[in-house]
Amino acid sequence: MKVQKQISVKNFKPAEGFIGRYQKLIKEVVIPYQYKVLCDEAEGAEKSHVIQNFINAGKALRGEDVGDGFYGMVFQDSDAAKWLEAVAYALVLYPDKELEAIADQVIDYIEAAQDTDGYLNTYYTIQHKERRWINLLEGHELYCAGHMMEAAAAYYEATGKNKLLNVMLKNAECIYKHFVTEGHEGYPGHPEVELALLRMYRASGNKLCLELAQHFLDVRGVDPHFFEKEAEKKSWVIWNNDPQNGEYQQSQCPVKEMDEATGHSVRAVYLYTAMADLAGEKDDKKLLEACRRLWKSITEKRMYVTGGIGSTVIGEAFTEDYDLPNDTAYAETCASIGLMFFASQMLCSNLDGNYADVMERSFYNTVLAGMQLDGKRFFYVNPLEVIPGIAGEAQTHKHDLPQRPTWYACACCPPNVARTVTSIGRYAYGVSDETAFCHLYAAGDVEFGNGMVLSCTTDYPYDFTIHYNVAKGGKKLAVRIPAWSETVSIKRGNNEVHPEIKKGYAYFEEVKDGEQITLILDGEPKFVYASPKIPDIQGGIAIQRGPLVYCFEGADNDGDILSLEVNTNNAIEVEGFDPKLLSGVTRLKVKAFRKEIPSGLYTTKKLKETACTAYAIPYYAWGNRGENEMRVWMTRH
Amino acid sequence: MKVQKQISVKNFKPAEGFIGRYQKLIKEVVIPYQYKVLCDEAEGAEKSHVIQNFINAGKALRGEDVGDGFYGMVFQDSDAAKWLEAVAYALVLYPDKELEAIADQVIDYIEAAQDTDGYLNTYYTIQHKERRWINLLEGHELYCAGHMMEAAAAYYEATGKNKLLNVMLKNAECIYKHFVTEGHEGYPGHPEVELALLRMYRASGNKLCLELAQHFLDVRGVDPHFFEKEAEKKSWVIWNNDPQNGEYQQSQCPVKEMDEATGHSVRAVYLYTAMADLAGEKDDKKLLEACRRLWKSITEKRMYVTGGIGSTVIGEAFTEDYDLPNDTAYAETCASIGLMFFASQMLCSNLDGNYADVMERSFYNTVLAGMQLDGKRFFYVNPLEVIPGIAGEAQTHKHDLPQRPTWYACACCPPNVARTVTSIGRYAYGVSDETAFCHLYAAGDVEFGNGMVLSCTTDYPYDFTIHYNVAKGGKKLAVRIPAWSETVSIKRGNNEVHPEIKKGYAYFEEVKDGEQITLILDGEPKFVYASPKIPDIQGGIAIQRGPLVYCFEGADNDGDILSLEVNTNNAIEVEGFDPKLLSGVTRLKVKAFRKEIPSGLYTTKKLKETACTAYAIPYYAWGNRGENEMRVWMTRH
Repeated sequence: MKVQKQISVKNFKPAEGFIGRYQKLIKEVVIPYQYKVLCDEAEGAEKSHVIQNFINAGKALRGEDVGDGFYGMVFQDSDAAKWLEAVAYALVLYPDKELEAIADQVIDYIEAAQDTDGYLNTYYTIQHKERRWINLLEGHELYCAGHMMEAAAAYYEATGKNKLLNVMLKNAECIYKHFVTEGHEGYPGHPEVELALLRMYRASGNKLCLELAQHFLDVRGVDPHFFEKEAEKKSWVIWNNDPQNGEYQQSQCPVKEMDEATGHSVRAVYLYTAMADLAGEKDDKKLLEACRRLWKSITEKRMYVTGGIGSTVIGEAFTEDYDLPNDTAYAETCASIGLMFFASQMLCSNLDGNYADVMERSFYNTVLAGMQLDGKRFFYVNPLEVIPGIAGEAQTHKHDLPQRPTWYACACCPPNVARTVTSIGRYAYGVSDETAFCHLYAAGDVEFGNGMVLSCTTDYPYDFTIHYNVAKGGKKLAVRIPAWSETVSIKRGNNEVHPEIKKGYAYFEEVKDGEQITLILDGEPKFVYASPKIPDIQGGIAIQRGPLVYCFEGADNDGDILSLEVNTNNAIEVEGFDPKLLSGVTRLKVKAFRKEIPSGLYTTKKLKETACTAYAIPYYAWGNRGENEMRVWMTRH
Repeated sequence: MKVQKQISVKNFKPAEGFIGRYQKLIKEVVIPYQYKVLCDEAEGAEKSHVIQNFINAGKALRGEDVGDGFYGMVFQDSDAAKWLEAVAYALVLYPDKELEAIADQVIDYIEAAQDTDGYLNTYYTIQHKERRWINLLEGHELYCAGHMMEAAAAYYEATGKNKLLNVMLKNAECIYKHFVTEGHEGYPGHPEVELALLRMYRASGNKLCLELAQHFLDVRGVDPHFFEKEAEKKSWVIWNNDPQNGEYQQSQCPVKEMDEATGHSVRAVYLYTAMADLAGEKDDKKLLEACRRLWKSITEKRMYVTGGIGSTVIGEAFTEDYDLPNDTAYAETCASIGLMFFASQMLCSNLDGNYADVMERSFYNTVLAGMQLDGKRFFYVNPLEVIPGIAGEAQTHKHDLPQRPTWYACACCPPNVARTVTSIGRYAYGVSDETAFCHLYAAGDVEFGNGMVLSCTTDYPYDFTIHYNVAKGGKKLAVRIPAWSETVSIKRGNNEVHPEIKKGYAYFEEVKDGEQITLILDGEPKFVYASPKIPDIQGGIAIQRGPLVYCFEGADNDGDILSLEVNTNNAIEVEGFDPKLLSGVTRLKVKAFRKEIPSGLYTTKKLKETACTAYAIPYYAWGNRGENEMRVWMTRH
């Protein structure tokens, strides 16, 4: 049973500050730029055609000439969906009639592109009606539907307008008819529609959505050979995905039997998110147990210290336990976003700070690293070590780029970052009938929806004092105390208090209107040690301060990180917050040694060394000062 | 100009002992087993058909029915060639009339498979006469010819029989006619024939071989787009090798302009070997300079401490400077064999111990590691770290196996090890008009061919005293003093002497019949430090004693290497030589710490540790005690 749920998109108004800066970039830079891309008006960007695809699909349905027809990937529609979803959240943060009118227009195109039976997908409608539902492994119809459902739920929550919601409810009925009523076998090759249907269910109350989500989760992997049988029948392949590779597409066994995070990591965490959501919704203990096993598999054996997951480029996938190479890491931005989704849903059924800790780790490190500080460039891949000359050059490192590229043809990560950053309130705050939950320290005003209202003020993650000013009190307030905080001091008004702390949450009873609750978390930077089971770290150390994992860049360290060895016997020093550096960061300073570079590759003479100081910056801010060396796990002296 | 040359195959009779044990295995286990493979009589081995291919090609030429025709790879013929070459050397070591008769029979088949114009290749002769010379990039005709020429030269040197030599001289004429007389453009996609032609020239004195070798080296890369043009014309592709990837097939520029070791590492070192040989033969300073640049590129920037080269599985290739991952290493056995060839040829023109040091490093570590201690299984790939559960399992580690597999379908490494180990005398000893050269410490009797004769007795590489008993003296004896030997004591008779040591060689003048010269080299094990420029070592340490690089295996260390940290403040201890362990090894012992394994992946608590002892074995002997962890570069405490 769910012990709490995410707050509504509408119920968090962020203050200016760390996250606010990112949200503003999304609104002012990313959303307008992406719209230009969608309309093929962005200079230098690859052709998208996605808006025109919807217009042309409408023409096709009306029997008109489809003009230049369809263009793009089979999942092209989802680009419009992700953009619309980000727009929905942005409109809550920054009401904008002009932007809303554009979005409404796009929704009109989408509505017109829906077939009379509710089917909606421009590729199939314009070009290949006969290919509907015959290639679930690669066809992405359900994936596209899922993203549009998420957009529909978000747009409805944000604006109260239900046109897109109704379109997608009709689409859900169409899917239901095919897979449930008519009993066609199958489930999506790329999970996404399941979590989206559950959102639609919550936004609309329509039980069919819940049932359909449950259907797809129930049938998945029950016949682990379904995709092979599908492959035998179909005449149409796209990328030649291997239908036998059940682990890749998470169809190797029924979902309730899964115990290891496998395969394409974004597919995986999208699936696990839906599983966790449904488990809470239906109080399905067996399903929840599977989710717990998958969570442990990820976070205890297959996750980078930055919250990155899916360590190999081959299949953008999970590999084996403890196989976490720093330099050839894949660690896709979208996978960490999906891990946040999964964590947030786990938190709804298990109030355990561990879920919020991981959610925070992924957000402040890998997710934010996905976007350049000016909002103009994006990383898909988030390595923990980049050495120019090797990164992006060696065959095994082609995907690990030393600098963020511009918008991609396959535009999954940038809009995913956009929608996550703009909807951070859903992850930061939760609610139950009688309790308000504060999971992340996001400055701003929160209406919990149960009558309680508060505002959070803080300069987190660079300051560790968090004030909650309670506007409207209530029975209980639960505030997360992160595991990384070795000390915590808590005040209610001016009095130091010692509330019960249970599984990472401090509970305050009978919270009154006008009360102020203050947390002072541990702001001491700390060395991080890795389990020796991770072969690729080999005794190295990392640094973390609060939620921020730090890294060392050439720009702060005379261009050479590799010859630095960090002295862990001395404390890490905190420099003052520098508002001008990297959009505002606090650098850290450690005692280190600079090793001499011998003439050849190997020597039996101990390398000479000189004491020096080394400087670390937050990982999310790396790669913003040109190509240079970067390393999270440093050699220990 | 060459300052010395390799001794003849016939002129070294090894003593029993370290190398002798390997040679015996080759003769008694590898050669008979491989012959069974070639005849399709080895149980469990993949079909070879190579002997039958030659028989069938003979039938085709006589217009008879070709029976089951051709089977195998386009380069299948080379398996017979490599086997014959190893047999030639084995016959010198262990005369065996029966084996010689078998080899003579195989040579008869080969002779019968040669076309009247001298052309020899069973694939083309049986199946595709029309494909001759049209796909030099992938067709491997010149590669197969090269290996058969090496076999011919070796068989002639070893047995004095010239049937195969004459066949291959006729074949050389055929190639000469096509590429030189008739002026057809082109050069081999896989270098090999160049170094083989130079061997043929030396064995036969036939200048056409020298000219043809020079021709192929002269034209290579002059038109770097040759393979692209070829691709445009040809209708036949095999593996779809990229004709534009000049670096892969070393056709990116004329060979004299090359300055970085690139591409497929075996192709590369085979080419560089021929370049070095020809540069010495022709006293071509520009070519020799290119060789020196390539040598430095490999040994100063792209070589593992084990003498392995070609660090990536993608194209079995060199990558970028300092990109030397331990766990995903390719480091093909054949590439290290090729590096020995290259070193040996460089040594002929530059008497510098550096070449012999690298030759020795490759031989005692990567080359010997290629073969299981019982001679029955072989590694192609020689990683410096193997963690069961990841090695051989993770997508990026599929090629890095924790145990040696049996004979492969593409059988390049096993016969390559066989021919190298059995012909070690050529690399160990050299000769000029007035000097005898001792490059490696190979126990046995050497006739230098210039009148000087000596026998070398030593238990090297486990003992560091080397006696040279001079049977017939001469003007000068040059003995290598390795760079790894920080101390050396030298005796002439009973007197400690201090001869001139120049570029790694001690020179003894006027050596008398019956004299004994003794070297005592440095047997102290040493910690090895890597250049900080190698990102994947990150402060780790390795251990070397004499030429042997050591590694740590689970079998000696309670099954867990990853949680060990080596204390480099204490000396490395030498255990007694154990004749029963791993066919006879000396283990080393270091003070170490065993780190506790924390419950999760990362912690800010320093890991607890317990002092312990850790044991290292020679790298060549790893993987002989079942699947277990192995690591060369250990975490430093």
